[in-house]
Amino acid sequence: MKTGRLEAFTDGVVAIIITIMVLELKVPHGGDLSGLAGGAPVLLAYLLSFINVGLYWNNHHHMLHATDRIDGRVLWANLFLLFWLSLVPFVIRWLDDSGFAAGATAAYGIVLGMASIGYELTERAIIACNGPQSPVARAIKHDWKGWGSIAIYCVAVPLAYVSRWIAIALYICVVALWLIPDRRIARELDRDV
Amino acid sequence: MKTGRLEAFTDGVVAIIITIMVLELKVPHGGDLSGLAGGAPVLLAYLLSFINVGLYWNNHHHMLHATDRIDGRVLWANLFLLFWLSLVPFVIRWLDDSGFAAGATAAYGIVLGMASIGYELTERAIIACNGPQSPVARAIKHDWKGWGSIAIYCVAVPLAYVSRWIAIALYICVVALWLIPDRRIARELDRDV
Amino acid sequence: MKTGRLEAFTDGVVAIIITIMVLELKVPHGGDLSGLAGGAPVLLAYLLSFINVGLYWNNHHHMLHATDRIDGRVLWANLFLLFWLSLVPFVIRWLDDSGFAAGATAAYGIVLGMASIGYELTERAIIACNGPQSPVARAIKHDWKGWGSIAIYCVAVPLAYVSRWIAIALYICVVALWLIPDRRIARELDRDV
Amino acid sequence: MKTGRLEAFTDGVVAIIITIMVLELKVPHGGDLSGLAGGAPVLLAYLLSFINVGLYWNNHHHMLHATDRIDGRVLWANLFLLFWLSLVPFVIRWLDDSGFAAGATAAYGIVLGMASIGYELTERAIIACNGPQSPVARAIKHDWKGWGSIAIYCVAVPLAYVSRWIAIALYICVVALWLIPDRRIARELDRDV
Repeated sequence: MKTGRLEAFTDGVVAIIITIMVLELKVPHGGDLSGLAGGAPVLLAYLLSFINVGLYWNNHHHMLHATDRIDGRVLWANLFLLFWLSLVPFVIRWLDDSGFAAGATAAYGIVLGMASIGYELTERAIIACNGPQSPVARAIKHDWKGWGSIAIYCVAVPLAYVSRWIAIALYICVVALWLIPDRRIARELDRDV
Repeated sequence: MKTGRLEAFTDGVVAIIITIMVLELKVPHGGDLSGLAGGAPVLLAYLLSFINVGLYWNNHHHMLHATDRIDGRVLWANLFLLFWLSLVPFVIRWLDDSGFAAGATAAYGIVLGMASIGYELTERAIIACNGPQSPVARAIKHDWKGWGSIAIYCVAVPLAYVSRWIAIALYICVVALWLIPDRRIARELDRDV
Repeated sequence: MKTGRLEAFTDGVVAIIITIMVLELKVPHGGDLSGLAGGAPVLLAYLLSFINVGLYWNNHHHMLHATDRIDGRVLWANLFLLFWLSLVPFVIRWLDDSGFAAGATAAYGIVLGMASIGYELTERAIIACNGPQSPVARAIKHDWKGWGSIAIYCVAVPLAYVSRWIAIALYICVVALWLIPDRRIARELDRDV
Repeated sequence: MKTGRLEAFTDGVVAIIITIMVLELKVPHGGDLSGLAGGAPVLLAYLLSFINVGLYWNNHHHMLHATDRIDGRVLWANLFLLFWLSLVPFVIRWLDDSGFAAGATAAYGIVLGMASIGYELTERAIIACNGPQSPVARAIKHDWKGWGSIAIYCVAVPLAYVSRWIAIALYICVVALWLIPDRRIARELDRDV
């Protein structure tokens, strides 16, 4: 099975998720730019989510570029990832409606954490399908960033009940971790050529 | 007529349906995760619909992969399928607003049952266009899963007025039926090569 | 300039229009299927619009398939067509909110009539770009269906103020006119080969 | 890294933005076409935004068509552009809700101005990646339209607090500036062949 249509479907779903999040933002009541100040936390949650979903698109792009073959298990692991990403607009709306309540802040971490697990599952399924000697397998063999993200979300979700700001700071840490460009796959591919 | 643009259009519509369903979910009133408990039935309906639409995408993907030619009848049968799939977000919202009333639960089954019929019609149109000896025709010649799904929906819809939980259990049965991977098309294609 | 990306962009916009229309439908107040009876007119407007947008996709698909070259004028004529198609969800919502008032019924005809004009403009721009001897030009040289549709909308819009049902009957006539398959382009292409 | 998937993702996001803007339009209260008169300003804002987003799609299309290579910096500059474009539906809704208040009118200019900067950043990143002698670099070397747009937005945003109509007139000027077709890239490409 070729990767083309999976890439196209994933790109389509991710493009829609990243765009419909804006429908969940509430406009300020007045007509002043200062009215945006009250909405600043949710605008920052929107920005954080936009970068997060953009990172998934970017990394997914690189991973599938290095992939030769996919099978049914890859399709379902990928659908699991898309399911959790599709809930991002829902938790943004909840954060907004509840004024960043502890439960909604924890839910945000659960959704992003489950998406991280979905990404790992997709990675494992691709390696199982392409074999441990394939370029994609060698390239992602030490995925400490992926496991690190999952660990941080596991810590951040219960901490949301202690302080929402600690949880949010940890969510920002995960994004910062990924913004450092991942040169592993590119390097491995270069080595093969 | 080539299958490329039909695949792209279907993928686009299915990607949008699977993603905008989330706009229909109502967030919990409070800020506690326990507030999700009240919304659990509709979150499960969302999950069930996500898997259902994902299954249509997956099976459609396999079917068109084995298809050489399409004609106007295939285009219209496919549009009939997409029409009923497009109503899935509508019935999820109705289920939520009515608190899983009998009528809304029946409507959910009608929409998914009509989509099943649409899938069968698309399958028949593809066979008519490619001939009974084509790989796709031999691969799907005994489509007992498709007819079984339609039969289950025919039974489940009136039963929704007896008990909504029986209807919902039957809807879950249909999904379980399809989650068993369908190796027929892959097997037939292998035999040809 | 190649037609590939224009086709992809048009398919994307049309797939989104055809899918988000469902977000405009209001669910019945009660939980009974009989509650759908009150919503029957708007469900029929949804069905009519779904077929209309599907027809545009289908005909656009055939036209671009026969097209070799496009230029800036084609891009802008096509964007004009997409602009009016993008207003279809808006007029469906207005029809629903106003209970099929005369003004909203007229607006529905104006939007679809302007889309028809947009389709004609795109057709003219493609002929101007490919020359009068190109396959696409000879294939669509007597586009009586396109001009007929525009004429019917010109008659139907003012008649909406006399009787909304006459206007709606005329809108259904236009769809019926197009559902008769258009074999001209296919025939011309066959003749060339 | 090839441009194909970036084009597809950008097209997807732009197609969704241009289409979901319509969900933000409020239908007239009555059923008369005269009811549209009250909504005329926001319909014009919708039209202006539709043309603006269409221009971005068109110019982006031409620029990437002339581009051979992209890198991580191009991906992030492009995501920055898409982030600001994604806020267009949000500011249209705010304009509508606030009755074209000064703050909302300024916010509209800020969002479009930041999108202009995002387009310039993408242009610079593409030139840095393809080298100053590449076709795309020579073609866009004197991008006075891009810098002119940014300058006009810088002037228009504070003027929104003096008079909203001056700001809106300036926003229309920017669109007019771009509607004059840009033959530079096409000309340079012709020269190379």
